[in-house]
Amino acid sequence: MQWKSPEEWEKLKQGIDCPMCADIHLVENQFSFLLAELSQSYARLSKNQYHKGYTVVALKRHANELFELAPEELAGYWKDVAQVAKALYTVYQPAKINYLIYGHHIPHIHCHMLVHFFEEDPSKVVNLGEGEKYLATAEYQQKIAKIREQL
Amino acid sequence: MQWKSPEEWEKLKQGIDCPMCADIHLVENQFSFLLAELSQSYARLSKNQYHKGYTVVALKRHANELFELAPEELAGYWKDVAQVAKALYTVYQPAKINYLIYGHHIPHIHCHMLVHFFEEDPSKVVNLGEGEKYLATAEYQQKIAKIREQL
Repeated sequence: MQWKSPEEWEKLKQGIDCPMCADIHLVENQFSFLLAELSQSYARLSKNQYHKGYTVVALKRHANELFELAPEELAGYWKDVAQVAKALYTVYQPAKINYLIYGHHIPHIHCHMLVHFFEEDPSKVVNLGEGEKYLATAEYQQKIAKIREQL
Repeated sequence: MQWKSPEEWEKLKQGIDCPMCADIHLVENQFSFLLAELSQSYARLSKNQYHKGYTVVALKRHANELFELAPEELAGYWKDVAQVAKALYTVYQPAKINYLIYGHHIPHIHCHMLVHFFEEDPSKVVNLGEGEKYLATAEYQQKIAKIREQL
C-alpha cells in the first residue's frame, strides 16, 4: 500500500476523512461484519477468516493513541476488548489470544484479535495479511451467532 | 524456538516456573532494563534496540488473558501502558505507537511497544525478532533517563 503524505497522515490523525469513522458502525462494511456494539467500541468479525476467528474491536469515537482517552474511556475500551477475548476463548479454545494495535494505515484505535492455537508454531511471525479466506454468508452468520452467544 | 508440551504450557499458564514472574521486577535481567514500577506493571526497555525505543510493559502478577483481570487491575494496567506510550511519543515523535500482546512463548501478560516512524513502510510486517542491535551501557542509561523524565 502507498505511503501517505505527512499532510494526509495529519488529517487522518485528526479524524478528517477517517475511513473507520465512516463505516465502523455498519452491520456490514467492506472488511467485516458487526458482532456487537459495546460501551466504547464496535466488535467486528473480519470477512477474511484466513486467521480463524479474526476479530477487530474499534473505538467508537476517533482517537489515535491510548493516552488520548479519558480514564473512563480507556478502562471501558479494554473492558470491551476483554469481553470479546473471553467470548473468542470460549468459542475457539485457543492456547492464547493476541491483542494487537498497530494503526500504520489508519490510526483510529482498533485492536486486532487473533486466536493462537497450540498446534501452531509459536515463533511464526504474525502477519495479518498472510492470506485470504472468505466464507459463504451462512458460515459467517453461524460464526457471528456463536460469538454473540458468549458476549 | 521449540514447542512446549501441552503439560508445560498448562503449567506456564498457571504461573508455575514462569520466567517472567522470576525476573520482570529486576533492575536488569537477560532481556531488558527496568524503566519504572507502575501501579499494575513494570515498564522495561529492551536491550535489543533493533526496533528503536522497543519497550515492554508487563503485568506485575501472573495472568495470561485480559479477562482474567479484575476491573481495577485491567484499568490500571492500561493506564500504565498509556503513560508509557505518552512518554515514548514525546521522546521519539513517531507516526504511531504499536501496542502488541502476543504471549505465544510466555503467556504472562506483557505488551510490546514499538514506535513506528513516518518514513517506515507502513505495510511492512512487524517482526519483533527481525534483527539485533545492542548498545553500550552509557547509551542505555541515556535512553532510560530520557524516557523516565517523561513518565
